[in-house]
Amino acid sequence: MSIDAIAPIDNSAATALTEAEIFDAHQGGKLSISSTVPLSNKRDLSIAYTPGVAEVSRAIHQKPELARTLTWAQRLVVVVSDGTAVLGLGNIGASASLPVMEGKSALFKTFGDLDSIPLVLDTTDVDEIVETLVRLRPSFGAVNLEDISAPRCFELEEKLIEALDCPVMHDDQHGTAVVALAALTNAAKVTGRELEGLRVVVSGAGAAGIAVAEILLTAGIKDVILLDSKGVINRERADIAADPQSKKAQMAQLSNPRGISGGPGEALLGADVFVGVSSSNLDEEHLKLMNQNSIVFALSNPDPEVLPEVAAKYAAVVATGRSDFPNQINNVLAFPGIFRGALDAGARRITPAMKLAAARAIAELAEADLSADYIVPSPLDPRVAPAVTAAVAAAVETE
Amino acid sequence: MSIDAIAPIDNSAATALTEAEIFDAHQGGKLSISSTVPLSNKRDLSIAYTPGVAEVSRAIHQKPELARTLTWAQRLVVVVSDGTAVLGLGNIGASASLPVMEGKSALFKTFGDLDSIPLVLDTTDVDEIVETLVRLRPSFGAVNLEDISAPRCFELEEKLIEALDCPVMHDDQHGTAVVALAALTNAAKVTGRELEGLRVVVSGAGAAGIAVAEILLTAGIKDVILLDSKGVINRERADIAADPQSKKAQMAQLSNPRGISGGPGEALLGADVFVGVSSSNLDEEHLKLMNQNSIVFALSNPDPEVLPEVAAKYAAVVATGRSDFPNQINNVLAFPGIFRGALDAGARRITPAMKLAAARAIAELAEADLSADYIVPSPLDPRVAPAVTAAVAAAVETE
Repeated sequence: MSIDAIAPIDNSAATALTEAEIFDAHQGGKLSISSTVPLSNKRDLSIAYTPGVAEVSRAIHQKPELARTLTWAQRLVVVVSDGTAVLGLGNIGASASLPVMEGKSALFKTFGDLDSIPLVLDTTDVDEIVETLVRLRPSFGAVNLEDISAPRCFELEEKLIEALDCPVMHDDQHGTAVVALAALTNAAKVTGRELEGLRVVVSGAGAAGIAVAEILLTAGIKDVILLDSKGVINRERADIAADPQSKKAQMAQLSNPRGISGGPGEALLGADVFVGVSSSNLDEEHLKLMNQNSIVFALSNPDPEVLPEVAAKYAAVVATGRSDFPNQINNVLAFPGIFRGALDAGARRITPAMKLAAARAIAELAEADLSADYIVPSPLDPRVAPAVTAAVAAAVETE
Repeated sequence: MSIDAIAPIDNSAATALTEAEIFDAHQGGKLSISSTVPLSNKRDLSIAYTPGVAEVSRAIHQKPELARTLTWAQRLVVVVSDGTAVLGLGNIGASASLPVMEGKSALFKTFGDLDSIPLVLDTTDVDEIVETLVRLRPSFGAVNLEDISAPRCFELEEKLIEALDCPVMHDDQHGTAVVALAALTNAAKVTGRELEGLRVVVSGAGAAGIAVAEILLTAGIKDVILLDSKGVINRERADIAADPQSKKAQMAQLSNPRGISGGPGEALLGADVFVGVSSSNLDEEHLKLMNQNSIVFALSNPDPEVLPEVAAKYAAVVATGRSDFPNQINNVLAFPGIFRGALDAGARRITPAMKLAAARAIAELAEADLSADYIVPSPLDPRVAPAVTAAVAAAVETE
């Protein structure tokens, strides 16, 4: 299940939404195009269209790099989905995914001041999606993949990064991972631990779970265990050994250094951190097995793996994906600044160093007021996107 | 050469444009995206994004026709080019064509209040372009083809109309044709002739020339002769007989009822109307061969086939593509209203009846003040797009 979610609101709360207000807000869609140049007289038209525009086209033809500054494309993010893993709704198809992608484009503009358009595809074939975006390459400057099912999303992202000379990121993977790392960095501080020494269990080995585990390893955490519906991911599991090219098989090599096998009980025994990015429940019995002053991120939306009031009986720090509890782990803290920083710096790829820099910037913004109930800034905090942008741009290695 | 052009301005005139002001206006491109819904607090986010948006996605999944009203896509025009015939610049490629497409999208918004995005393609293979748009079908509501070279443009438009259940129009063909027909309707009135009885010579058998000839035939004009660089198009020409599936071969069947052969001289002898949509010159000697009170549309940009002051020695009505002469034949009179009317009425195709209705609406707006120097409204006349929209929508045959 995707946890890319903003402010899931309990409809029993004071903020209850009515169907009518949701549907009214969506009439005609949520995006609008406008011209940034005036078009009110003949002179305006002759600058923005013929004959003036011919000078600009000729200039780009002669010097292709001028497209970077003389078109909107090189700073345009395409939000791409095939509708196979839309929020918690599953494979509902491209057209039904479009309201989510429009919302994402609206967030890119609001938080990153980046223009963005949704492109939803009536094919779920990875190679066809790659081919389509390669053909459209001159139209955009970056690709945000969204709500694409695992494990296809891993292959798609890899192939696109290979095929395109521009930033490509599957936000359900890396946006989630960046914010989770930021939150964990601060949760370790609040509980007086070193990040690198944490024992972490990640529950869920889909798009988000794999990416969270990867970024935690990249950040220097040595003891990460991944759980899927069949239990702990390790090299001995028959289904994993049978598919050695899969992401799970790769993670079986990189994670689980103590060679644990079994289920949540075996994994959580002596763990410092639980990160839930699946819709499976975390039993109170298992919580008891964790170390004292544990850290619990129950990120499934709208229903966390464990409710904060239950988790708080055992854990020192609790985070969820929801806006009605403290410590909301929300991708919007990351993706606008990551793309904006990458584009500002002319990056061709979004590297691990850029993701770590984004996580550090998010964590640092909360440092001054750090507490068990404040380990990440609010998704609406206006300082976040500029700080992430600057940090990511600074982390771009110029070629 | 494409004549899809707005207000080509003679740089020797008082309105001269400097390179600096053209390039300044193009910094960062000419389009901007905005959110049509507020995103300033948690409640806003929970309506436009999760959890609220999930209700909308679920509704579309269950009832696909709801995408028509609950997304922006069904009223979104994609302006599609492969950069093979950009203005008068020729095959300069997709990226260099983008400033033109951005301008076109800006015009769609300004004149038709339609959202529109440019999609420029790094392939010139007709089937690949069709395949790409078929895959993207859930992302848009109509296709405006632009600056695609002939004869590929004919095949591409036909295949797209077949493959997509939405309005598709190559504006260089049909926008030009509609405005030319509107102008000719009024020019006939000014010179006291019946439209159907006119003898017309169309010079140029590319995208615009073929489409102009076709719409004139559809409008009931019986004597239309097409000229290309090799002379009059007829069934006997070896190059045309050799390619019987080509548009020129089709036009050889439908046009030239008197079986003329030869060049401009043979074609123009006794002609009432010259419509130039190529960059070839019209010699004064040939002008003399036309009937008295002739009608001359010299539409090439920026250099008309004959200058108005020369044409006026022989012709009663002269039109060009330029804004610095009277009677500017400009596609912007047609395309915003054609697409808007088609989308307003839920049309699946843009039919000949809709194009004729658009031409009639444009012509009627000039009727009250008709003169030899006023046969079409100004491209900036705010009455035009609403009138064309209404006429086109009324001409849609509901299925």
